[in-house]
Amino acid sequence: MYFRYTGVRVRNLQRSLRFYTKVMGMKAHLEGKMWHGGVWVELKSPNSSQRLELNYYPPGTKYYEKFKTGSEMDHLAFWVKDVDKRYAQLLKKGAKKGIAPFAQGKYRFAFVKDPDGIWIELIGRGKRPS
Amino acid sequence: MYFRYTGVRVRNLQRSLRFYTKVMGMKAHLEGKMWHGGVWVELKSPNSSQRLELNYYPPGTKYYEKFKTGSEMDHLAFWVKDVDKRYAQLLKKGAKKGIAPFAQGKYRFAFVKDPDGIWIELIGRGKRPS
Repeated sequence: MYFRYTGVRVRNLQRSLRFYTKVMGMKAHLEGKMWHGGVWVELKSPNSSQRLELNYYPPGTKYYEKFKTGSEMDHLAFWVKDVDKRYAQLLKKGAKKGIAPFAQGKYRFAFVKDPDGIWIELIGRGKRPS
Repeated sequence: MYFRYTGVRVRNLQRSLRFYTKVMGMKAHLEGKMWHGGVWVELKSPNSSQRLELNYYPPGTKYYEKFKTGSEMDHLAFWVKDVDKRYAQLLKKGAKKGIAPFAQGKYRFAFVKDPDGIWIELIGRGKRPS
């Protein structure tokens, strides 16, 4: 038994697909339909084996629900080379503002949000003191 | 930039750690503290590179919130050899009931829930018709 992927629920599949591919640089490599009408698309970043699934449940299907913001999904983390540059670029490309870049220990962090409000952590090495 | 891990928020770190290690068979391999008092533990299954982080925010710390059940975290998927056997075993070990095993296409599925109510999908190959 092994952990294989994380599936997040999205409110608008095309919007989320666009976000995770065009803004976050992932690639969709598998997709399918569930027996009840739900749709899933699996994504990976080039050079990483981590899998993210987008799950969409059309209104009227068995597992549709009115979207509620909750606590369970804390964040999706992306490793980046330059946190500050990437943070600015992602905002320009349409990611929602989260937390501006800051340092902690040897690392630098920032947060943006996806179209459904999921927090996305950017983590990278800290800047060397000059 | 690449997707590195999923972080879920837990209400009781020891309870969730016990669940993901003793029941779901994962191993904790990294842990740390956030500047604001939050605690994280990173887990992997033996034989898989997928990372799951448990995030705990103690009451009184900056990112603590009253836990709300929401829609974003759809499910965590685990690949298993025998869905029916594993489903029965996980219930015995304390996982909460989700959806009893069923077939779809070439695969077999079942769902249980973690201590915070996160849906856990069990997916495995379908049984050959006898």
